[in-house]
Amino acid sequence: MQESTRPVDDIGLVEPKTKHFSETLALASGSELHGFDIVYETYGELNKECSNAILICHALSGNHHAAGYHSTQDKKSGWWNNVIGPNKAIDTNRFFVVSPNNIGGCSGSTGPLTIDPVTNSPYGPDFPLVTVKDWVKTQAMLADKLGIDVWSVIIGGSLGGMQCLEWSISYPHRVKHAFIIAAAAKLSTQNIAFNEVARQAIRTDQNFNGGHYYESNSKPELGLMLARMLGHITYLSDDALDEKFGRDLRDGEIKFGYEAEFQIESYLRYQAKTFVERFDANSYLLLTKVLDYFDPAGDTRGSLSKAMAPATAKFLIISFSSDWRFSPECSQEMVSALLDANKRVSYIEIQSAQGHDSFLMPIPRYHQVLKTALDRIAKELGLS
Amino acid sequence: MQESTRPVDDIGLVEPKTKHFSETLALASGSELHGFDIVYETYGELNKECSNAILICHALSGNHHAAGYHSTQDKKSGWWNNVIGPNKAIDTNRFFVVSPNNIGGCSGSTGPLTIDPVTNSPYGPDFPLVTVKDWVKTQAMLADKLGIDVWSVIIGGSLGGMQCLEWSISYPHRVKHAFIIAAAAKLSTQNIAFNEVARQAIRTDQNFNGGHYYESNSKPELGLMLARMLGHITYLSDDALDEKFGRDLRDGEIKFGYEAEFQIESYLRYQAKTFVERFDANSYLLLTKVLDYFDPAGDTRGSLSKAMAPATAKFLIISFSSDWRFSPECSQEMVSALLDANKRVSYIEIQSAQGHDSFLMPIPRYHQVLKTALDRIAKELGLS
Repeated sequence: MQESTRPVDDIGLVEPKTKHFSETLALASGSELHGFDIVYETYGELNKECSNAILICHALSGNHHAAGYHSTQDKKSGWWNNVIGPNKAIDTNRFFVVSPNNIGGCSGSTGPLTIDPVTNSPYGPDFPLVTVKDWVKTQAMLADKLGIDVWSVIIGGSLGGMQCLEWSISYPHRVKHAFIIAAAAKLSTQNIAFNEVARQAIRTDQNFNGGHYYESNSKPELGLMLARMLGHITYLSDDALDEKFGRDLRDGEIKFGYEAEFQIESYLRYQAKTFVERFDANSYLLLTKVLDYFDPAGDTRGSLSKAMAPATAKFLIISFSSDWRFSPECSQEMVSALLDANKRVSYIEIQSAQGHDSFLMPIPRYHQVLKTALDRIAKELGLS
Repeated sequence: MQESTRPVDDIGLVEPKTKHFSETLALASGSELHGFDIVYETYGELNKECSNAILICHALSGNHHAAGYHSTQDKKSGWWNNVIGPNKAIDTNRFFVVSPNNIGGCSGSTGPLTIDPVTNSPYGPDFPLVTVKDWVKTQAMLADKLGIDVWSVIIGGSLGGMQCLEWSISYPHRVKHAFIIAAAAKLSTQNIAFNEVARQAIRTDQNFNGGHYYESNSKPELGLMLARMLGHITYLSDDALDEKFGRDLRDGEIKFGYEAEFQIESYLRYQAKTFVERFDANSYLLLTKVLDYFDPAGDTRGSLSKAMAPATAKFLIISFSSDWRFSPECSQEMVSALLDANKRVSYIEIQSAQGHDSFLMPIPRYHQVLKTALDRIAKELGLS
């Protein structure tokens, strides 16, 4: 699909695939899932030695569609199209990239929207809460089916970075390199607090109905909009918002009323409206809980360094100067723990103005760091 | 009321007073208010020369009850009792302190809860939006009634600091000293964005009913709770939350459900519940708008320095190191503009961990700065 309007290094048309797992999945919560699907995309080709596989772990509102387009009509590419493709930082001419959608989401893998085979209705709020560890387990099951024993690299930003970290602990010998971007080894109290406000917004929406809203025509859209507006503010830096919107008024003057007056107000409302069209409130609730629960050091009396003891991967940790959701200090905490645990770790703080969302942005220095690291790995692996 | 359990330097029992203004008040919005009341408290005695008066301007959720107790049964004192009282930083043995409640609030001064004489129903959502300039105008009218021509000092934190700044521009010759604490000359885009989320939470509450909820039994409590939870997070620093709550669990273990699991979740819910018992949603909406609108430099093509040209007061500006709602940079912007405008200004950034709420806290260095400055002013005025 290399139309003239699209750069020739784009991956073009891609198609999601599905793997079904019929076995019972025991979850960290003690609940079980009796069979599940994982939707995923792949880019590039797995080599004969099965040594060139890269796993992409997505963040809260992401999914399996990381690169390329689903149809020639698509205006939007996958969420990390600026990084994944032929000759891009994650070069699909050399690497085989696997991008799964996590269970519990709402993009195709088994989640609250899925029909529960026991009740013949959507799981809805009865879908069990899952953890990063559960996700990593299902990703490992997917790897088995794809014939990938060892990932050359596992890469993820934000909540995706937490999955990388967990992989390096849960399956140390299946990860050669872990790239952990704009992430943290655990949420701060403030992070949990913001998540709690988002959850309360959804759960107190008059259409939430305890999560059983699929049967009715009304979804808890207002609550989910509030959750997204709040989230969105925390993904951007104060400076980026000032730069982009400042105190600009929609109609050039104060109207002394409650319609959107400042541009930032219209923007947030618009962002939130777009989001609720594509996202399910029960999934959103679940995902905030996955974030809250993640804390590998919780199993080692608070010592992240001890938690990291099993890891054998080489780590690349990247933070962004203006990220206040998962600040550079969060990354430095991981670096420090990894050094204490005598692990191999590189760290860079990228100067950027766009806050937490920087990990999605085409920041030249950032992409250069990824490219250089992956070029070296390709060379080590003897990939042409 | 100097019981043994209360320190002897407390001001003791105080009683709110009310002044009625029968004149029509022309507001910045173009609307008019046909008569209004201001509730206020005073502490200490106005001297013969009327030279020892201090005006206290309250912040968003504050009111006129700044010091002392309303009854011997009161467990809570006024909101700034740690600063105002005999021998305290604002020494009521020497100064006559006036603390009014602003119009538009819900603590007694005319606001949405007040009966509109025209309709004989509460103003509710028809109460006109006001501005900091409007407030300062009504405070000046109160000063006239109290026989105070010139305030020796006007002091305020947060939204209260904005009122100090506005006083120094609107009535330069009526302010000798302006103490502007944890404030800003305008909201950042991020601040406006948070306010917008709070407003949407209230306005989309199923019980909001366009603001006409007084007649029904149900108030938009859930929306106001969300607004308060969100506000509360922004008033505290990330570090203060980590220090106080960390990732502590309510029941010692993860329950994999949506009841409050982390201590921070219970805390936020409790804070919000307490708040909605005492606060009116229409007032909350109005107050967020007052904050958004404040921007004296808006009248001088963005030049704060030009906006400050009329001022003759001596300024003391105080910020707190961990305040990310109105950061030290916001204070420095005011200092810089005042210096450019050739005004007399002192500035200090107080080291503190408690974020924006620091301005309410008994931080020794902070109180010492206030005390030293006020002692000097008392000496200049020849107060014993």
